[in-house]
Amino acid sequence: LTAVLSRSQVRVRYAETDQMGIAYHGAYFVWFEVARVDYLREHGFTYRELEEKEDLHLPVIEAQARFLKPTFYDDVLEIRTRLTEISGARVSFEYAVHREVDAPAVATGRTAHAAVDKRGRPRRFPEALRQQLS
Amino acid sequence: LTAVLSRSQVRVRYAETDQMGIAYHGAYFVWFEVARVDYLREHGFTYRELEEKEDLHLPVIEAQARFLKPTFYDDVLEIRTRLTEISGARVSFEYAVHREVDAPAVATGRTAHAAVDKRGRPRRFPEALRQQLS
Amino acid sequence: LTAVLSRSQVRVRYAETDQMGIAYHGAYFVWFEVARVDYLREHGFTYRELEEKEDLHLPVIEAQARFLKPTFYDDVLEIRTRLTEISGARVSFEYAVHREVDAPAVATGRTAHAAVDKRGRPRRFPEALRQQLS
Amino acid sequence: LTAVLSRSQVRVRYAETDQMGIAYHGAYFVWFEVARVDYLREHGFTYRELEEKEDLHLPVIEAQARFLKPTFYDDVLEIRTRLTEISGARVSFEYAVHREVDAPAVATGRTAHAAVDKRGRPRRFPEALRQQLS
Repeated sequence: LTAVLSRSQVRVRYAETDQMGIAYHGAYFVWFEVARVDYLREHGFTYRELEEKEDLHLPVIEAQARFLKPTFYDDVLEIRTRLTEISGARVSFEYAVHREVDAPAVATGRTAHAAVDKRGRPRRFPEALRQQLS
Repeated sequence: LTAVLSRSQVRVRYAETDQMGIAYHGAYFVWFEVARVDYLREHGFTYRELEEKEDLHLPVIEAQARFLKPTFYDDVLEIRTRLTEISGARVSFEYAVHREVDAPAVATGRTAHAAVDKRGRPRRFPEALRQQLS
Repeated sequence: LTAVLSRSQVRVRYAETDQMGIAYHGAYFVWFEVARVDYLREHGFTYRELEEKEDLHLPVIEAQARFLKPTFYDDVLEIRTRLTEISGARVSFEYAVHREVDAPAVATGRTAHAAVDKRGRPRRFPEALRQQLS
Repeated sequence: LTAVLSRSQVRVRYAETDQMGIAYHGAYFVWFEVARVDYLREHGFTYRELEEKEDLHLPVIEAQARFLKPTFYDDVLEIRTRLTEISGARVSFEYAVHREVDAPAVATGRTAHAAVDKRGRPRRFPEALRQQLS
């Protein structure tokens, strides 16, 4: 599969910190969502339009993350996203979160998604989408 | 209007704390939502069913809170909810958050809601609902 | 007081929507926080450094918002922030949320903040900060 | 290791739904946190006191979940939690989320945690804790 990366930036919000003084681990899954929507946008697809116009929804069916080093309030993080799999009705992404561009990732993760319609019934990816992303 | 109170309990979650070591102020609005749904339930109405069966939705059109004293991780808070207004197409609630049952509130708030259908168009409250709540 | 506005942009995240298909009202208070930190940054102050170096914390003591029109997933919102009051130990902000630059606000709000140290004890604003912001 | 389960209940909040009309996947990680704190409490340990009195903090270093079936607003979910590993400086939990007591899990997950002090430096579990949990 393509090694094309997209790069997203998020700034850690106060609401995303916890009393340990670091970003709450649950926030990373929200950032991953921001990052994969950016990935789609850079490849010509607006997730909002996929939902509205194509009745294509991509609920998360699996999510995983490793938290290697903490991140902190007001940090500007770069999230590097890669599509790792796209089959008839499933798509997966990998993420690496960087605090500094040249340093190793402080967190990594992956998500897998089913392709369903508005009612949650499985459907296939439109062929154009599958081809352009893979 | 009736002075009937409903009492709800929430326990402050780790995710709801911030790096100041207290509950994040935004969390209170989520707790108010928990509390007013409890209020409706105690008066015979399940908000989920109002949405699903009556196509009655109550989006927040105004929200306000005063944070008098901080609350902390793992605190069990009691939220006392009162309906303060119900007219043709608008309903309002007041909330008081207590850390200790006999001590003054640590936070207070109020929300106002429009009655709309699924598409956001104004509608009137079903008369049974209006009568039973007021 | 100065009429100086700062302008912040946030894009509505999927996590911030609810099953009404609009942005959850609680999300606006998080966006206000993003916006007032931007306001401080544009005036030469990094809130993170105020906490770390000056032991100055600004917990929210009051928050209010009116939700005039809904906002939607993936909307890019502009938040216009104005400082409305700064006294010895209290500062207040006003916010207007715009979906389109030339259209009226879809939501407005305000927050008031106490100036405290790490332990929550009241303290006065550093004079430099007070002068530069007012 | 012990097969002892703890059982926690959470009710899906409106804030936790998204515009797909289901509970947002990120919310499950917050529920897992509620569930493991309940697990500790049932075994005689209050996580709040572990932090305050023992300077023992358990940041998440890995988290994973599978979302097998959606859950919905106002659902009362039972989360069954099991401790799966406790070594010198690491503890892991497994979770199963049930919508109906007798039906298979609608989601499963696991988290791994480091034992650190307030400054994030690795430390060992107090022996009493390790013995009682294992």
